[in-house]
Amino acid sequence: MNNADELKRRVDACLRRLVDEEESELLRVSEELAPLCAQLRVSLTRGKRLRAAFLYWGWRAAGQPDCEGVVKAAAAMELVHAAACTHDDIIDDSRLRHGVPTAHAAFAEGGAGTWGTPAGAPHGSRQDRSAALAMMLGDLLMGYAGQVFATCGLPGAYVARTVPLWSSLLRETVAGEFLEVLRTGSVVPKVAESLEVARYKTAKYTVERPLHMGATLGGASPSVLAAFTGYGMPLGEAFQLRDDLLGVFGDPVETGKSNLDDLRDKKPTALLAVTASLLSADEERQLEEVLGKPSLDEADAAHVRQLMERSGARQRIEDMIQERIARARAALDSVALPPPARAALGALADSATDRSL
Amino acid sequence: MNNADELKRRVDACLRRLVDEEESELLRVSEELAPLCAQLRVSLTRGKRLRAAFLYWGWRAAGQPDCEGVVKAAAAMELVHAAACTHDDIIDDSRLRHGVPTAHAAFAEGGAGTWGTPAGAPHGSRQDRSAALAMMLGDLLMGYAGQVFATCGLPGAYVARTVPLWSSLLRETVAGEFLEVLRTGSVVPKVAESLEVARYKTAKYTVERPLHMGATLGGASPSVLAAFTGYGMPLGEAFQLRDDLLGVFGDPVETGKSNLDDLRDKKPTALLAVTASLLSADEERQLEEVLGKPSLDEADAAHVRQLMERSGARQRIEDMIQERIARARAALDSVALPPPARAALGALADSATDRSL
Repeated sequence: MNNADELKRRVDACLRRLVDEEESELLRVSEELAPLCAQLRVSLTRGKRLRAAFLYWGWRAAGQPDCEGVVKAAAAMELVHAAACTHDDIIDDSRLRHGVPTAHAAFAEGGAGTWGTPAGAPHGSRQDRSAALAMMLGDLLMGYAGQVFATCGLPGAYVARTVPLWSSLLRETVAGEFLEVLRTGSVVPKVAESLEVARYKTAKYTVERPLHMGATLGGASPSVLAAFTGYGMPLGEAFQLRDDLLGVFGDPVETGKSNLDDLRDKKPTALLAVTASLLSADEERQLEEVLGKPSLDEADAAHVRQLMERSGARQRIEDMIQERIARARAALDSVALPPPARAALGALADSATDRSL
Repeated sequence: MNNADELKRRVDACLRRLVDEEESELLRVSEELAPLCAQLRVSLTRGKRLRAAFLYWGWRAAGQPDCEGVVKAAAAMELVHAAACTHDDIIDDSRLRHGVPTAHAAFAEGGAGTWGTPAGAPHGSRQDRSAALAMMLGDLLMGYAGQVFATCGLPGAYVARTVPLWSSLLRETVAGEFLEVLRTGSVVPKVAESLEVARYKTAKYTVERPLHMGATLGGASPSVLAAFTGYGMPLGEAFQLRDDLLGVFGDPVETGKSNLDDLRDKKPTALLAVTASLLSADEERQLEEVLGKPSLDEADAAHVRQLMERSGARQRIEDMIQERIARARAALDSVALPPPARAALGALADSATDRSL
């Protein structure tokens, strides 16, 4: 099987089956869990299934055949991602993802309450109720990930040898998120710091680890695993850099998310770091004045975009993306792979150039 | 092995080894993760290790011998609990557990920010930073639980047959928490509703499922599993009812937690439900006036305690605890068990009567 849409369809179907089963289990516990079921479905309906694709092609790269077991293992990657997104959206207070309200935003609209304390509201469990409900949804999704992977149907010995990779995936993802939270909203970061967060938060988690999972399930050689690190790390950084650009320059209609949040939150992106490094002292003051303003509006954002354009920072990031894709392709060429896997991984590398990614 | 302290010591040692290993892994990622490591250690330092004990004795009840593998599997239960407590404390904004600051409280003291939006603070990632960091810690702990269980060293076939129980444990725990969040701070619940939450949030999660995990690992008969449901559900409810009493009447020095939070948050406990059912219309108005006040103070709490005493609600809850312990013991006597397991499970049932639990 070599068709990206076909793989996506099979992963989607696997996740839909899980939602259908779990919905009936949850409603058996209580009818009041209907909102949880609804958001569970939404959180698993959208997505490009990139991580699933990398796991799948890691397996195929090891010379293993297509089968339903690996598709189920790949679907587990998407459950990890859905869980991480649900918690990440609470932290960033992102209200839209793929054009639909995020879980905590939906729970808030449902009257479950919102982030923050209205003046005179009680402390504790009354406030932030929608965030609490979304946190529970994320916990549920993460738990499903482990269950689906453990029961994917591939031989137990194959699954067992990936356990250390699960630990690494989890540790690196939490570490990356933790570092980003520590740094968000504070001083404009150095480029190197931004890329460090990107490496843990995106590169390893989105590309390298899913590839290693699939390759390890399939029993790939150390040289293939090494090539996947050489391919996955720069490509993952490229995805993050693309995401940084879309977070500021993207069309919300195309990206399905706000293009103001990153600036309003003063996200420590490489785009921001490069911009700051290229501005005059006076321009940097202008930048600092606008960033992180709770009231940051379209006009403020337009001003920052202009600074990013004029300074050449936007182009610099585009160049960094191209350079990383080239490195990823070179790593791919450095090792012998079955032709279908090589073709699919090459196409996945090019997708980082897609401006509507 | 039949000594509760000795089992606790071995579970503690297993968790300490995990923390030592993970700390070095995390610091290898970044020195900035030191606060995460510190809270990881704190979150795994305290606790009665009740859930570990139930898993361990479920295994022994199946006729299996003491071994390090089951102690490691038991320690995984404590990791699930530490994860659930970390997220639960964020939701309830509980500042103290076992007499030390909870994770989000500690991150806030560390200058990481606090719940709620100070007037004029930006939306999103700047606010609630300490809650975000604690949420990440909880995610990490839950991930470790799966890893430690999967690598406990017991035969793969034993571990594999417990996967459906993991799903149930997770689903029921999240469902119980979700229902509690939905109901907290709203109208005073019916007794039946409070006990429903207690069944999912505490009874299954604290007693029945850990017992079933151990018994299933050990290959126990269906009659033993059934007896463990008959023992675990009433005993778990008794633990929750005891916890409800300690949450209002407990001495913070002994319990290590506030005895105002449950009232301030208007926690939908059975104690509150029974109290409301026994009060006159006038007294109920007095109760409603005090509950959920953000400014609820010691004098308000004293007034509520007096209503709970005078109405006979406190005694009613004590009676409900005794009645449940008797049912748990009867279920235990209904099945053949190895004497050490029967003795240990009997002692665990009596611990629900411990007023400083």
